[in-house]
Amino acid sequence: MEPSVSLTRQALETLDREDPLASFREEFMLPDGLIYLDGNSLGAMPKTARARIDEVVSQEWGHDLITSWNKNDWFDLSLRLGTKIARLIGANDDEVVVSDSTGINLYKVLCMALALRPDRNVILMEDSNFPTDNYVAQGLVRQLGRGQEVRFASRETIIDHITSDVAVLALTQVHYKTGAVFDMDEITRRAHEAGALACWDLCHSAGAIAVDLGRARADFAVGCGYKFLNGGPGAPAFLYVAKRHQGKAQQPLSGWWGHADPFAFERDYRPTKDIRQLQSGTQPILSLAALECGLDIMGRADMALLRTKSMALGASFKALMDAHCAEFGFTLTSPQRAEDRASQIAYTHPHGYAIMQALIAQDVIGDFRAPDILRFGFTPLYTRYQDMWNAVMAIKAVMTEQSWKLPQYATRTKVT
Amino acid sequence: MEPSVSLTRQALETLDREDPLASFREEFMLPDGLIYLDGNSLGAMPKTARARIDEVVSQEWGHDLITSWNKNDWFDLSLRLGTKIARLIGANDDEVVVSDSTGINLYKVLCMALALRPDRNVILMEDSNFPTDNYVAQGLVRQLGRGQEVRFASRETIIDHITSDVAVLALTQVHYKTGAVFDMDEITRRAHEAGALACWDLCHSAGAIAVDLGRARADFAVGCGYKFLNGGPGAPAFLYVAKRHQGKAQQPLSGWWGHADPFAFERDYRPTKDIRQLQSGTQPILSLAALECGLDIMGRADMALLRTKSMALGASFKALMDAHCAEFGFTLTSPQRAEDRASQIAYTHPHGYAIMQALIAQDVIGDFRAPDILRFGFTPLYTRYQDMWNAVMAIKAVMTEQSWKLPQYATRTKVT
Repeated sequence: MEPSVSLTRQALETLDREDPLASFREEFMLPDGLIYLDGNSLGAMPKTARARIDEVVSQEWGHDLITSWNKNDWFDLSLRLGTKIARLIGANDDEVVVSDSTGINLYKVLCMALALRPDRNVILMEDSNFPTDNYVAQGLVRQLGRGQEVRFASRETIIDHITSDVAVLALTQVHYKTGAVFDMDEITRRAHEAGALACWDLCHSAGAIAVDLGRARADFAVGCGYKFLNGGPGAPAFLYVAKRHQGKAQQPLSGWWGHADPFAFERDYRPTKDIRQLQSGTQPILSLAALECGLDIMGRADMALLRTKSMALGASFKALMDAHCAEFGFTLTSPQRAEDRASQIAYTHPHGYAIMQALIAQDVIGDFRAPDILRFGFTPLYTRYQDMWNAVMAIKAVMTEQSWKLPQYATRTKVT
Repeated sequence: MEPSVSLTRQALETLDREDPLASFREEFMLPDGLIYLDGNSLGAMPKTARARIDEVVSQEWGHDLITSWNKNDWFDLSLRLGTKIARLIGANDDEVVVSDSTGINLYKVLCMALALRPDRNVILMEDSNFPTDNYVAQGLVRQLGRGQEVRFASRETIIDHITSDVAVLALTQVHYKTGAVFDMDEITRRAHEAGALACWDLCHSAGAIAVDLGRARADFAVGCGYKFLNGGPGAPAFLYVAKRHQGKAQQPLSGWWGHADPFAFERDYRPTKDIRQLQSGTQPILSLAALECGLDIMGRADMALLRTKSMALGASFKALMDAHCAEFGFTLTSPQRAEDRASQIAYTHPHGYAIMQALIAQDVIGDFRAPDILRFGFTPLYTRYQDMWNAVMAIKAVMTEQSWKLPQYATRTKVT
């Protein structure tokens, strides 16, 4: 899918004027002049969040105090947000809950998966995955110490590694660096054919591409709230357990929120048989309230339109890079075709870190991923076509003027 | 410690005027006319929180976006808050981190404890404890399934149960219903004598009584931020690992925040050797920011003065109950002496639920705990002596007028 118009600034501005999603941009706080291509790392702030959070702080906490658990429905907030996310990812309302962090949620569902396949001992993962998923799986098998194993395979050969000892295939649907998309339906089918379960990390999928866990018959999924869902920094994460597995195995982080009767204060744990068993303890209400603001915008957006625009943005960016920056040594590390990428694109460059710092100094915000990747995210709710022009022109300027060689851009600092 | 003045309303108002902590009350949002005796469940809102959270939302998230991880020091927020809590509980600065929920943190440190005592298989707990701790321990031993066991003993006999198979004694220092305080120093000493480790849940201790984990040589501790620390609803929790144990065992929820070099994105987990290994994934920044507001107030308060006032408040409440409500069938279930209680007091009553609902309707907020407990918390930062008078007079009125018999107070709803 390549843009059909000639890629002038004017043509891109015309696309913005004709964009059926254009009005969503007004719903987000975006500083003047900033070209923000990092919504895949931290989504922009919904303007509603400011008033809503102030209401939660000053009214619900400050005034209503403890009564808010009932009066302002804090008790069911995690489930209500779960339902809102379920509708974005093709799940049923009672299959998703918001809780904890992505890694901890992955731990919970991997525990369930191993329990559901007691005669198998392998967690199969992709070796170039965002490593926190690997780390969590490694932590689990190290802890269990009964011959369980995390086995890694390359992205290209992963399907061939679903052998009869694989309990669960745990993949991130969209690669965090390249944006390459796994075929969830096909891979889940192949996993099931081999008797394995399929768990999907949707961190770079949810809100970025159409996800249909139900159609794919996915067994488990996890994902975060602070990227394309615009839920705020460190927003609590979500998890999905297919209804058919609920109550069939128990996750071990068994706090009172997952008890069949939490307010009976019984001495011994009795699990609920539904998605609530995946909850542990009390969740951070302020951060949950912010997440709801993001979800409520996303819930009004048409995913087909989002996807079409996302691909067009990515294709425009790539075409502009081809046209204006071919000489500067960038290598596309994402798939060539927009259809094969989610909502981000990545290039390698030997001076990637310094170049990104120089871009950020010019208010073009992408991010850097070790060792040499520049990553640009497109958030069709608020990214404009003209941003593609301005971003690539900024890259061209940084390279032409060699401003990335300035000493202040040379030193690595932490980036997320 | 009984109040030395005759308990008239006037005498109590005099105590308020002479209270060296009185000015702290101005730092909290408290609705006019409300008598809030539930700070042991959800602490009141520091007035600074409103502006601070708005700054985090509109400036740090809305304007600075992804750069806030460095620019606004989000990366080290969990450690910075850990240090602030460390100073309240007698820990070293590098022994505490804020992360996740109390239950999940308990899971992590119990995993470490079992790893440090591989030849022992019992987690010893108290049978009337707030049960989420039990549930987490039960989830862990069920998951491990290698003969590990959660053994319960009564509060009174717990020390006698530290047998040679006990790996870790996991106790909540202050009982959630009665406020009774375990002798941390003595019990930790006895645990160590028996070769066991000691883990303390400080949920109703931190900010309520003087805690000195270092003096006690406690091995592990956990606690929540939303009670006496006034960190906001569902504020992230904290955990403590004594320096001597750090790096000696590994907790299994091993996310990238606990990796030795998280931004190297290595495929395999390499744990840090310090408190950061107890971190898993990205934390909810808005909720962390609110917690810091609570901690910054608590950090300025003199714990000896807090404790003195707390005991005087509790003693006043009890004396007023004895003087004015003896005929109504309340039974003290907390220790008789203020010295033996933390910062709360509890009574049983066969109609406890309805009575508490009637009190709440009169703007006296305590809470109810099944099956029959009325619980009143005293938060010396903002609870006044005159509140004791007004609360007990409200109880007297509810009982005299039998307003608790009104049908709207009869139906159980959820309370936390």
